[in-house]
Amino acid sequence: MNVVIVGATGLVGRTMLRVLEERNVNVDRLVLAASERSAGQTMTFRDQPLDVVELRPETFDGIDYALFSAGGSVSRQFAPVAAARGCVVIDNSSAWRMDPDVPLVVPEVNPLDALLHRGVIANPNCSTIQLVVALKPLAEAFGLRRVVVSTYQTPSGAGQKGLDQLRAELEGRMPMERISPHQLAGNTVFHTIDALNADSEEETKVMRETRRILHMDSLPLAVTCVRVPVIGGHAESVAVETERPCSADDVRQVLSNAPGVVVVDDPANAQYPTTVRANDTDPVYVGRIRPDASVANGILLWVVADNLRKGAATNAVQILEVLAAHR
Amino acid sequence: MNVVIVGATGLVGRTMLRVLEERNVNVDRLVLAASERSAGQTMTFRDQPLDVVELRPETFDGIDYALFSAGGSVSRQFAPVAAARGCVVIDNSSAWRMDPDVPLVVPEVNPLDALLHRGVIANPNCSTIQLVVALKPLAEAFGLRRVVVSTYQTPSGAGQKGLDQLRAELEGRMPMERISPHQLAGNTVFHTIDALNADSEEETKVMRETRRILHMDSLPLAVTCVRVPVIGGHAESVAVETERPCSADDVRQVLSNAPGVVVVDDPANAQYPTTVRANDTDPVYVGRIRPDASVANGILLWVVADNLRKGAATNAVQILEVLAAHR
Repeated sequence: MNVVIVGATGLVGRTMLRVLEERNVNVDRLVLAASERSAGQTMTFRDQPLDVVELRPETFDGIDYALFSAGGSVSRQFAPVAAARGCVVIDNSSAWRMDPDVPLVVPEVNPLDALLHRGVIANPNCSTIQLVVALKPLAEAFGLRRVVVSTYQTPSGAGQKGLDQLRAELEGRMPMERISPHQLAGNTVFHTIDALNADSEEETKVMRETRRILHMDSLPLAVTCVRVPVIGGHAESVAVETERPCSADDVRQVLSNAPGVVVVDDPANAQYPTTVRANDTDPVYVGRIRPDASVANGILLWVVADNLRKGAATNAVQILEVLAAHR
Repeated sequence: MNVVIVGATGLVGRTMLRVLEERNVNVDRLVLAASERSAGQTMTFRDQPLDVVELRPETFDGIDYALFSAGGSVSRQFAPVAAARGCVVIDNSSAWRMDPDVPLVVPEVNPLDALLHRGVIANPNCSTIQLVVALKPLAEAFGLRRVVVSTYQTPSGAGQKGLDQLRAELEGRMPMERISPHQLAGNTVFHTIDALNADSEEETKVMRETRRILHMDSLPLAVTCVRVPVIGGHAESVAVETERPCSADDVRQVLSNAPGVVVVDDPANAQYPTTVRANDTDPVYVGRIRPDASVANGILLWVVADNLRKGAATNAVQILEVLAAHR
């Protein structure tokens, strides 16, 4: 199985490389591709040095799977090129996520959708992935009536630039580039909001993608996405209304048996998911599971995951594993 | 008018001193009191040095108003002593907030409750104050059916110790004292949760106090309180369901005319309330006002205020002003 990582030198690309190693994915040949600016760097895969090559159409010749994380415009340009050469693309950008011909897949939730691809599969937004991993078992067990989400997101969701702005500010330096006109350090800010929309781009993604992955086109969802000055992952405060009654213990039981979920929920001993604890690990952690007496069948959850791993690289590699298992 | 600040050397006490100066409160004599450990320090009021005295029962002799911010146990011990000596106590601790004989007051919301005091008035929890300032105008204009809140709170809500833990961690030092067993820097953590309760102490305060101040004993409220590594204030993501239909423009209009509220809501130009912008100012800022299509009469808000000023010191001084105006 021959694999290329497109955008290999980026924050997600580097994590994809590590996840391929860690999960012992059966890769015969790995190609690392990036923009002209980053080509020529050397990275290490399975203790072997690998040169980063400049992305060209020929990069995909003889390649079975391409993991893309180089931004929307590269994906729009090169995913069709790769697919036309017989390479299956798993794309981490938002370019194809709402295309009805492109499956949008979280392997714990809708793995079989991956098999319907026509050459391109989309990896969802990071905030969406951890949310649907936690919601899917509840949808199956109790039904979902409405979900209200507020997020606590690391600036690394915007890639290395986001981390660089935060780190520069924390160290009292002027950032070289900015992902927000506002200070990130010590602050709470929002993602880009375009003039035509009251919701931010991130909020719109979470609503649309969650409905699509869960196959619940009209699921009522209220989403507020916030960047906070944390490094290791995203957290989400989630208020769920279920169709059928369920206790906090019922929910704890269902989530404890759910794929990809780790329940951490002993609040009296200060045991609950935290961003720092989730960092550099793959599970979606759920805690603070408690009844919400303000509505019928209300349950509150706190959902945390590493946005670069389960929220991006790990999910993409899991999609690759699903495809490889069905070859 | 003679005033004592009890806990004058603490984070809120120092802010009370500054707010008394800034608002030109008609204070004839100001006494600064603190524990034995802090007594002897010198602080400055209206360019005059003032020695901090040790708190004793006699401290209240000849004093009209006492602003307490020295923790619950000092308040429980000394507020009755002060009241018995004819001094009216405005107490920033949680000791008396749910006592039916003690008014719980936010001057923009329920000023007249202050006049029913029997010697002690409670200043609400910081997260509660900014929430009710934003909710009260909506309750009057449209009615409230349900409120779902997730907070983004600075560790300074736990006083100087909270800030010290965060700053030590940001600077790579070991904190001398901890307000959380978890790292605060780069993390999302919860307030203390006791073994008998699924909600944290902070979450319980916000629910109970909000209902009491709004005089809505059964208002359905879901509250999740989170500490994030910010310095200047608290932010709140608020999903409101109103009794009567209202558009985002209706809400913007009502809040623009509401006392104590400043609407900052031009998201396409990245203009919205931020923690950094709210820092060291008195208003409650509201933005991201937008429809919530997931429920009938749903509105989403983002509410930010400086927790040491409007969330503590300024609100207490405003209560003092209400009392002084009705002497």
